[in-house]
Amino acid sequence: MTQRETAVDVVDFTPGRWGNPNDQMKLSDSVLKALTMIGIEEQAPAPGEVTVPEVRIDSDTLDAITATGARVDTSDAARTKHLRGYSTPDLLKFRAGDGSDAPDAVVQPTDAGQVAAVLAVCDDRGIGLSPYAGGTAVTGGLAADRARSVISLDLRQLTGLLELDEVSRIATFAAGTRLPEAERLLGERGFELGHFPQSYEGATIGGCAVTRSAGQSSIGYGRFDDMVVGLTVATPTGISEIGTAPKSAAGPDLRQLFLGSEGAFGVVTTVRVHVHPVPTVRRFYGWHFSDFSSGAAAMRALAQSAVKPTVLRLSDEAETGLNLANPSAAGAAAESGPVGGCLMIVGFEGDEADVECRDTYVSTRLAELGGTALGTEPGEHWREGRFRGPYMRDPLLDAGALVETLETVTFWSNLERLKADVTAAVTGALGDQGTPAVVMCHISHVYPTGASLYFTVISNALDDPQTQWATAKSAANTAIRAAGASITHHHAVGTDHQRTYLEEIGDVQVRALRAVKDALDPNGVLNPGILLP
Amino acid sequence: MTQRETAVDVVDFTPGRWGNPNDQMKLSDSVLKALTMIGIEEQAPAPGEVTVPEVRIDSDTLDAITATGARVDTSDAARTKHLRGYSTPDLLKFRAGDGSDAPDAVVQPTDAGQVAAVLAVCDDRGIGLSPYAGGTAVTGGLAADRARSVISLDLRQLTGLLELDEVSRIATFAAGTRLPEAERLLGERGFELGHFPQSYEGATIGGCAVTRSAGQSSIGYGRFDDMVVGLTVATPTGISEIGTAPKSAAGPDLRQLFLGSEGAFGVVTTVRVHVHPVPTVRRFYGWHFSDFSSGAAAMRALAQSAVKPTVLRLSDEAETGLNLANPSAAGAAAESGPVGGCLMIVGFEGDEADVECRDTYVSTRLAELGGTALGTEPGEHWREGRFRGPYMRDPLLDAGALVETLETVTFWSNLERLKADVTAAVTGALGDQGTPAVVMCHISHVYPTGASLYFTVISNALDDPQTQWATAKSAANTAIRAAGASITHHHAVGTDHQRTYLEEIGDVQVRALRAVKDALDPNGVLNPGILLP
Repeated sequence: MTQRETAVDVVDFTPGRWGNPNDQMKLSDSVLKALTMIGIEEQAPAPGEVTVPEVRIDSDTLDAITATGARVDTSDAARTKHLRGYSTPDLLKFRAGDGSDAPDAVVQPTDAGQVAAVLAVCDDRGIGLSPYAGGTAVTGGLAADRARSVISLDLRQLTGLLELDEVSRIATFAAGTRLPEAERLLGERGFELGHFPQSYEGATIGGCAVTRSAGQSSIGYGRFDDMVVGLTVATPTGISEIGTAPKSAAGPDLRQLFLGSEGAFGVVTTVRVHVHPVPTVRRFYGWHFSDFSSGAAAMRALAQSAVKPTVLRLSDEAETGLNLANPSAAGAAAESGPVGGCLMIVGFEGDEADVECRDTYVSTRLAELGGTALGTEPGEHWREGRFRGPYMRDPLLDAGALVETLETVTFWSNLERLKADVTAAVTGALGDQGTPAVVMCHISHVYPTGASLYFTVISNALDDPQTQWATAKSAANTAIRAAGASITHHHAVGTDHQRTYLEEIGDVQVRALRAVKDALDPNGVLNPGILLP
Repeated sequence: MTQRETAVDVVDFTPGRWGNPNDQMKLSDSVLKALTMIGIEEQAPAPGEVTVPEVRIDSDTLDAITATGARVDTSDAARTKHLRGYSTPDLLKFRAGDGSDAPDAVVQPTDAGQVAAVLAVCDDRGIGLSPYAGGTAVTGGLAADRARSVISLDLRQLTGLLELDEVSRIATFAAGTRLPEAERLLGERGFELGHFPQSYEGATIGGCAVTRSAGQSSIGYGRFDDMVVGLTVATPTGISEIGTAPKSAAGPDLRQLFLGSEGAFGVVTTVRVHVHPVPTVRRFYGWHFSDFSSGAAAMRALAQSAVKPTVLRLSDEAETGLNLANPSAAGAAAESGPVGGCLMIVGFEGDEADVECRDTYVSTRLAELGGTALGTEPGEHWREGRFRGPYMRDPLLDAGALVETLETVTFWSNLERLKADVTAAVTGALGDQGTPAVVMCHISHVYPTGASLYFTVISNALDDPQTQWATAKSAANTAIRAAGASITHHHAVGTDHQRTYLEEIGDVQVRALRAVKDALDPNGVLNPGILLP
């Protein structure tokens, strides 16, 4: 048991390949053998060189931007680095050498004043501006519409813990601060944020805010939108400080209008978040349930209880069978414990007294609800590998697999139907193309009224894997919409979910958003084409 | 210990006098004696007859509204009933016979279709429309701007539990359902909402949504905006279903744009809220702290802990001294327990196992933090009188006192400064008028990052008590703004807080709200003058 989470290096990801480049994953023999069982035998072609289009910003404009003090870079390397994110379609485009979405220039301000100044130049000259921070987008949120010239506004120099209110437990961060850096800075003061999405190593404070990120400890510490108490947002029409109190009845909660706005309403420059003391106790357990239904019912009971763990996660039978909760040992059969069924991970963090109180209550409930305790080993394995899942994707693509994830969220009474419908839609769409798919699923975020579903899909890649996946994704989107669920629980809208998103919220809400956009960004320079068309 | 909360009759309040008319309060001799100590000796003049202005809607328009099927009433009695709410300024205007804010007509639809039809007539003819449900507003939210003709859209016929999803624990209510009726309907199915504002006997589901109400169990069950998972909103430009999932990353959370919108963006016709099973155990305790600082520090420790009670409330020394937590015995000294200091109320509701777990943890913490356990008697007294506080106001006004409440919210590190500043501002403003004031305060809603402050002010009424109070309220508003706090924690903006509210959110946010208003209500018929000028 450690007091602090394992430190993670703050290292830039390589364009087109997920994760810390010094820590890439090699597939085990057991995984490679498993792939042959679904017909994956031929390696993918070697990635091509990425070609980016001509720069379409004149030198006068580049000079005006440079005059703000921000660094301007129009090199192919910089533009390729800021090209898209890390969805499978993004990775496949990289592999195909497609740099068509590249920004015309990369602009790196060093403070909020420069952000506002760059924004003014762009607004004045009608140049689109796409905020970039962690670069870990997986729904096309970085691929701004190039109908006009677009710069990538790289916020990675806006970094640091600007203020810590230890009494109110509020930390003010510059928006470009990466999550591991945020934890390091807080840790020096005895505090922790506790926001652990799988993109933890790359993601930033600002990026988590504008995409409504959810971390693996969401049942304990809340989603990122729960943690945010305030935002500073720069718009072409002024700067706004949003959030005067924890909660208020002073009109609509406008924090919730900017959270999830994906840079379309303004550029978030600072974020004030709720933090907590570094836990002195961390306990992670595995529990076994005979099937997904009984495991999900137990998750629901805990989500609807007043006493909750810090981490709660349930893999379905397929994911449990492939041991995906422990990516380092994926494909290998669990060495001990019951065979089949579903693995639940239950974690507690806090001080001795509060962990003891919650652990006792939760363990008793889980046993009553049909769970079998597996001890701490599966929990610790999960914890050690908690950011490793996405590292499997590139080697799987190399090996000739088509692999991607997708996620959604609905109310409890609709959860099993949604799981069945999405699974059927994806397996149907891929099966129809002659490529049977393995679809695995887990629940990793729960609420009193519902839960998220996170799917991992593996199939044999065809010659045109982009179209192959687009067909499957479209079928999934249709199934999600037909089931009345939300198109995304924590990956945001971007460009990939936009059509389904607009259907989900409907005409009145689209008009409300459009009105806000037009009022704050009358020339439409903020992240054009993202969130709203 | 009972399984259900005491049932409360659903009875209309009398215009100009708070609460169930069959259950009015008489001041005890000890209160009357206490009043003389701050110079209150002369009874207020007897209330005058209320005079309402001429009806300014032509018969053609009234016919068009009647054709929707809604009931139309232009009688003086109906218009007086729908005149303003129950703030002290409202009560004083009633007493002065001032009916100038009366709506031109009262329109009572029986279903959401009639609401939309009435909205269409009003939009077409430029008639303002002010939604009315519980009528318990205390910040002028019912006093729509009469620069144009205005109808009061009385939603009290839109009532009932429309759907109950026991698995997801979501109840769908018609917006006009009163809270006691909602609890009765849920109770028949074994469920409870658990939303207990002091206005419980009069307030409605829809009213709680559009004003971001907070109930006495907010630390356990959340504020009303936390409970809402979905809304149906009728606007002049279309009907919208808002909220597809518990939480989502599909853009901004637009529920939070309509919650707190006070009818300015649309008329809420149904609300989907999170409910819980009727608790089998309810325990309420009193705790004593030597002073407000140590009590507030203990509140903060619990608010920042993972294990929380269901109810948590702290009276300051002045409120504790006057025994205001137990209005039925107000003014009488507590019969037992320590003298002086501050009274904390701590309540637990749930099942045996979860209450036991939380009670043990919380009691241990409170003792460590300097609290002295007073047993269940003060807790049960508080619970019995939990809705009685506002019943004291009318008899106090009758007796010649000026009495009003106000509330605010800030972060923990700012709480004691805010309390001192508001107290000084109010006592200064009243003292300057020759009327020394008693200012009492309690904390009744806590969050990990901050808490609300609720003030009760009593002074001797001058001949023009409206101006007298306006001066004090203005001083309080200035102090709240200067301290960086929010102008209201749970009473909403209405007309009374509008000027300070616009300063609080600033130009960018005002423009965002204005844009939404103009997009959804282009002719400005929805609650004109409320929320936005």
